[in-house]
Amino acid sequence: MKVEGKNYQSIRVHPSERNIVQIIDQQLLPFDFKIINLATPEEVFDAIKKMQVRGAPLVGAAGAAGIYLATLHLKKGDDVLTSMIKIAEKLKTARPTAVNLAFAVDEVIKKISDTNSIEEMQETAYEEALRRIESEKESCCKIGEHGLEIIETISRRKKGEEVHILTHCNAGWLACIDYGTATAPIYLAHDKGIKVHVWVDETRPRNQGGRLTAWELGQHGVPCTVIADNTGGHLMQHGMVDMVIVGSDRTTRTGDVANKIGTYLKALAAKDNHIPFYVALPSSSFDFTLTDGIHEIPIEERSPGEVTHIQGMTGKNIVEVRIVPDNAQAANYGFDVTPAGLVTGLITERGICDANEKSITQMFSDIINK
Amino acid sequence: MKVEGKNYQSIRVHPSERNIVQIIDQQLLPFDFKIINLATPEEVFDAIKKMQVRGAPLVGAAGAAGIYLATLHLKKGDDVLTSMIKIAEKLKTARPTAVNLAFAVDEVIKKISDTNSIEEMQETAYEEALRRIESEKESCCKIGEHGLEIIETISRRKKGEEVHILTHCNAGWLACIDYGTATAPIYLAHDKGIKVHVWVDETRPRNQGGRLTAWELGQHGVPCTVIADNTGGHLMQHGMVDMVIVGSDRTTRTGDVANKIGTYLKALAAKDNHIPFYVALPSSSFDFTLTDGIHEIPIEERSPGEVTHIQGMTGKNIVEVRIVPDNAQAANYGFDVTPAGLVTGLITERGICDANEKSITQMFSDIINK
Repeated sequence: MKVEGKNYQSIRVHPSERNIVQIIDQQLLPFDFKIINLATPEEVFDAIKKMQVRGAPLVGAAGAAGIYLATLHLKKGDDVLTSMIKIAEKLKTARPTAVNLAFAVDEVIKKISDTNSIEEMQETAYEEALRRIESEKESCCKIGEHGLEIIETISRRKKGEEVHILTHCNAGWLACIDYGTATAPIYLAHDKGIKVHVWVDETRPRNQGGRLTAWELGQHGVPCTVIADNTGGHLMQHGMVDMVIVGSDRTTRTGDVANKIGTYLKALAAKDNHIPFYVALPSSSFDFTLTDGIHEIPIEERSPGEVTHIQGMTGKNIVEVRIVPDNAQAANYGFDVTPAGLVTGLITERGICDANEKSITQMFSDIINK
Repeated sequence: MKVEGKNYQSIRVHPSERNIVQIIDQQLLPFDFKIINLATPEEVFDAIKKMQVRGAPLVGAAGAAGIYLATLHLKKGDDVLTSMIKIAEKLKTARPTAVNLAFAVDEVIKKISDTNSIEEMQETAYEEALRRIESEKESCCKIGEHGLEIIETISRRKKGEEVHILTHCNAGWLACIDYGTATAPIYLAHDKGIKVHVWVDETRPRNQGGRLTAWELGQHGVPCTVIADNTGGHLMQHGMVDMVIVGSDRTTRTGDVANKIGTYLKALAAKDNHIPFYVALPSSSFDFTLTDGIHEIPIEERSPGEVTHIQGMTGKNIVEVRIVPDNAQAANYGFDVTPAGLVTGLITERGICDANEKSITQMFSDIINK
């Protein structure tokens, strides 16, 4: 998607220097836009650790790219596969809870373990890293195409008037190489000339909405308005929201959706006001082993400091300020679970399915039975 | 209620100097605790204007006190009543939307217009200001007593285990002279030795919860935890909230409750999880002329700057930082309306009534028929 009028993606191999991987430093957004060149697996490790890259699909792609970069520094005569496995194990510890990272790293390792020379290993790892980047992009693009149909239908019903879409957190291209999940249908609609406007939940406590979603939509030219997370219910009561689209960190085979804390509250308000509530996610975000999201999905407790302190700009400086009384207690639950009954539909790369066991297992029977 | 172990109220006549009114500078809370002495109606005007005093009952009391202070500076020979009316009109413009301010100021003016000397006028205004302060306190205390019964019942059911209460915004003693409305039952329960713990919604965008409610509960020794506004639904799904108590800015004769933006979302979650949702309010917060809260209560749009910027402490300085991309659009709706169907009960100084027209008009028939 666009930044200052030019197309970007959140990770890529440098277009003219194949031994460099480029990322955007997401820790600085939206206050500063900076591209970082990575040349070694150690630099990839640091970028993941420091949250310069975040979002499950992007972290996976970064992991694959890290393994590729590692192959460029192997020395002839070393036990290259043993060295690579050691590097892979270290890389996986950069974000231990992110399933995508371990999965992507292991997949590249598996592919290169069949190679017969360092050169072949380098070529295989390069192709594998590229393949992962491209397949994430393609999957998001497909989600966008399926979701676009929903927006088009609403736009027709409104006779071309602006379609107002509310989103929570950042399920945008920054987290997903390109397009994003929840944002993919929005970008495609906007690029097609359909009038859309996005209500962006700021998404306390980490403010991924106010910082990242508002930034990426704004840079691409999509009209959007940041609101406090408290606001959505009021907007829905007054007919100011036509649909909700959010992403998901994990969705059960029964359609219960774990996503950023606060998603459940918006789903309740959408239901109460007869507004469609969609969840956009790639098939890799399903957990087909679970049937009860509220009781089976563990919810991570994060640092209370994310609630008690906030980062912002004053003059030309990024500073962190305390926003509660000194020594105030705070709690910080990262996610909540929206029960399937509140979800209108799941927008996946394969199409849209209902949020229930029958529809989900039908659409993904090949994966489930593998 | 207590601050650093000593009893305070949010406004009082100086205990040894009758010509001074004291307030707490609420603009500095929770970062600094400072008492301000007010000696003239102009100083009262500034304190209201600068939000050093806020909260409908407190602003009303400050207005009455301002008229009292004005009587102390009258000169013999002036047309004193005309001077007083002029001062009153000016004072009322300090917060034009606050009904309580105009109401309180007009009431003192009415009382003093029957007096025959400056001395008598001063004495009448003094008594009227004191009466207002005392009657607001008494009304909050009564709300506390009625709400206490609910907490006691839950505490007994839980066999004395901690009762977890969620509240939104600041309907505390800072806004109401003493006790507060939503907080009154909590303070009374705590002082009686009942184990209570409060989940304090930070209440974006102005953070009255994280700044004021957390501060006043903490100072009085009530255990509390600040949470992002997104969190309540998750806590309720997991049995971590026993009841919700909020205040109200305006409640219809049918029981629809206008309160700080985001209240509606918590009411939906409470309903979905079978958790009692109470609204604590003095009878003066009812608007008996309205029957449809969502369509009849106008919702104030406030400055987008409250969403895009936030005030906090860094080192020893209070600074304001920008937390969204430069030039990002933001919208800031101050309140929302919770439909009566989501409200378990209304805790008033007269007792608890159901949130419906029959119960409300029965309890307040004398006021309605006046």
